[in-house]
Parts: sequence; C-alpha cells; structure tokens
Amino acid sequence: MLETFESGQEEAQKIDEELFTEYAFSVDQLMELAGFSCAVAIHSAYPRSSMKTSDGGVLICCGPGNNGGDGLVCARHLKLFGYKPTVYYPRSPSKQLYKNLVTQCEKMGIAFLSYIPSDVKILESAYDLIVDALFGFGFRPPLKPDFAETVQRIASLNVPLVSIDVPSGWEVSEKTETTDLLQPDCLISLTAPKLCAHRFTGRFHFLGGRFVPPLLADKYNLCLPPYPGASPVVLLKGPQLGDLQTSNK
Amino acid sequence: MLETFESGQEEAQKIDEELFTEYAFSVDQLMELAGFSCAVAIHSAYPRSSMKTSDGGVLICCGPGNNGGDGLVCARHLKLFGYKPTVYYPRSPSKQLYKNLVTQCEKMGIAFLSYIPSDVKILESAYDLIVDALFGFGFRPPLKPDFAETVQRIASLNVPLVSIDVPSGWEVSEKTETTDLLQPDCLISLTAPKLCAHRFTGRFHFLGGRFVPPLLADKYNLCLPPYPGASPVVLLKGPQLGDLQTSNK
Repeated sequence: MLETFESGQEEAQKIDEELFTEYAFSVDQLMELAGFSCAVAIHSAYPRSSMKTSDGGVLICCGPGNNGGDGLVCARHLKLFGYKPTVYYPRSPSKQLYKNLVTQCEKMGIAFLSYIPSDVKILESAYDLIVDALFGFGFRPPLKPDFAETVQRIASLNVPLVSIDVPSGWEVSEKTETTDLLQPDCLISLTAPKLCAHRFTGRFHFLGGRFVPPLLADKYNLCLPPYPGASPVVLLKGPQLGDLQTSNK
Repeated sequence: MLETFESGQEEAQKIDEELFTEYAFSVDQLMELAGFSCAVAIHSAYPRSSMKTSDGGVLICCGPGNNGGDGLVCARHLKLFGYKPTVYYPRSPSKQLYKNLVTQCEKMGIAFLSYIPSDVKILESAYDLIVDALFGFGFRPPLKPDFAETVQRIASLNVPLVSIDVPSGWEVSEKTETTDLLQPDCLISLTAPKLCAHRFTGRFHFLGGRFVPPLLADKYNLCLPPYPGASPVVLLKGPQLGDLQTSNK
C-alpha cells in the first residue's frame, strides 16, 4: 500500500490540463523534466557499470503519445549519461514536437529499430534493460493488435523492464485488476502515482516529474512525498540507493 | 587557467543557433535544462540549511533576454528545492515564452519586486544570495543606465553573488579586461565556459546545461569535461561538494 496519494485516470487528465492552461507550462518543458527524471531514476536503479551483458544497451519502446515523448527525452539523457539507448518507435506521429524529439535523438547518435527482432536471445544479449514508454495515464484497454504484439514480446524477455508512469496495457484507475501482461521491475510514476500502482509488484517504484506547484498539489490533495535535495526523483519503494540518499540533506 | 575549451561571443552564438536549427531543440527545452542546472549548482554551493540570515531568501535579478529566462526557470526550481526566491524583472518582455515563465513563477508563490530597495541593510537581511541573470553571452558593453544602476547596487552588497553564464556587464570575449563591476562568488557557465571566465576570481565555477550533442561538441572542439553521474552540473573550480562527488560513480 502506497502512502502517497494516487490519482485516477480522470483526475490525472485534469491535473495535466491545469498544468498547461492555468500554470502556463509548455509540453516541451514538462516532457523534458519528466523524461530527464526517468533517466535519473534508471541511472540510480541500474547503474551503467552494472550492465555487463550489453555494455549499457537499453531498448526504449515509445508509443504515439506523450508517454512516447517522455521515452524519447529519457533516451537522449541516458545517452548523455553514458548508456547505449536504442529506440523502437513504430508509429512516429507527424506533430512537430515529436519530429523534433526524434531529430534530437538521431543527431545524438541514437539508433532507431524498424522492428523488434523475434529472437529472444538476440534481444537478451543486446539489452540489459527495456523501457516501456508505450502508453501512459490516458490509455484505455484493450491494446490494438500491433502494440499487443510488442507488449507480448517485451513480456517474454528475461531482462528487467522499466515502465514510465503506467505499465502499458494496464487499466489506469483499477487497483486490483489481475490480467496484466507486463509486470515491470521498476515503475516511474510521473506527477503523482496512479491508482493502478497498487498492482505493481516490482522492486523499484520512483516518483518523478518534480514540477507540481504546491497550489495544484493542494487542490487535488496530492500529499506528494518530499523529494531529496535537488533530485528530480524520489524513491517510493525499493532498496536504498546511494545516489538518492546522499543528496538528501 | 581553465582546462576546458572557452568560447568567444561569436562562437557561442553559432553553437546556440545550431542547437535550435540543426539539432531541433526548442528554447523551452534548453532553457528548462539550463535553469534547472543553475538551481542544482546553487543547491550544491549554497545549501538551504546554510542560509541563516534570511532563512533561504534568494534575490534573482532577471534581464530581458534568454539569460533572464534561465533566471526565471532557476527561481522556480529553487522554490521546489525549499528556497525562498524573489524575482526582480524590471523589463519583462511581451514574448509569450517569458509571460509563461512569469506565470509559472507567480503561481508557484514566488514574489516579484517592482524595484530594488536602496537600503543595503534591508537587502542584506532579506537575502542570503543574489543571482545575476541580467545578461548572458549575447551582451555587448556598455550597460544601459537603468541596468548599470542595478548592477552597481548588486555589487555594493555584502552577500554572495551567483552569475548565470556571464557576469553581467562583462565583455564576453575578453580574457583580461579589468574594469568589471561585478565579481561573483560563483559562476555557472552554460553549454561551455566563455573566454571571459578567465577573469573570474570567485570560489565556485560550475558548468551546466548538459545537453550538448557530442557531434556539436566535436565540431567546435569544445573538450567538455565529463559530468559526474546523472548530475546536470560539473564543478570546474571550487571546494569539493558532497552532492556532486557522491553522484560520480
């Protein structure tokens, strides 16, 4: 049981909308902070030096919406942290924002896969970590066939999985649903955990996206935990991590 | 003598332009990362707990250009880190980006001063730190009278001063100019140090803005130092700081 507030799907959508209207944030700004916080969480939980099999290989699967955008930003920062991210972005949208995020990744030397190989051994030797940035808090089941196939392939791998905000395919507002295909090793909730985080049984649960104005948090009674020091993430559940603890002063 | 590359004014302008054109970054994105890195540097060098006089008061003086924008972003993150920032923004531009940054600060409960009090004692008791976000690498002397007055007032205070990117009023490309009014205690260079950083005699010199693509760094032969861990800043000069060192692994 989490001690912080968890938001349902409608509430998460309202909070998101207020950030853009009332609080005048741009999507670029918040996506940058969200994606950066995901990269910092990954750096804490899966240090680059621990990635022996692939020498830092991370496969980031990005969906067509904002969750995919967070994934692209995360990929770029991971590259700057010394990882070797590869992006799978099967349906890249025509919106300028997403085109720009792709360009930024490409110019940073990040490779894009045109398909996910079906050979499990190839994937397991090429990547030490998979990031699920397919769908976020706006998703409603069921997954369309092409994405269902991707999710099934990811689920079959013996490689730790990190989900951004919501594990893809999950019913966001449901606390006890049990037919989840993905069960990530690490969940990085953004802004506030969603109700479905109750079903998360993995090792690490982070909260990221440290940009919520106190007034907004009060309005929605978010009860967010304090972030340590200047860190963009806070560990809600998991083994003590050196990086985060030491910056807590 | 710095060991990293320092850029002149024209070169800094070219690098900046390429980031927006060739690398498809938006101003919102890079300003968010730059301002955030400034807040992290300040958190490292001037921990909140060390601010005894004002209980966390920081006065951030913002100019009309991008340097002022970095200052507004920095103020917002400092507020989230538990500081009590106040902004002085004498010429707030009509551009939507800047209006939004002001709204974000105001909605975060950050106060805006309409003028800087002339009473030195009032200022010194209200603030433990002054941030100079007036002018950056695009500035050419001399300062216009109203800003010269602000700079003179800041220079007269017995409170540590942090300059973002370039101390305001300084000739950017000059290594040995000696008529500088401001001499900050801390300089936070962004993207790459500017040539004028040779004239900096303060305690802390940080490099922030960890977003430069390796290809671009190579093209301009930037020789940037490695950033520690997932930190958005690297200390180029100054006493060892716990926060940064511990994340270097």
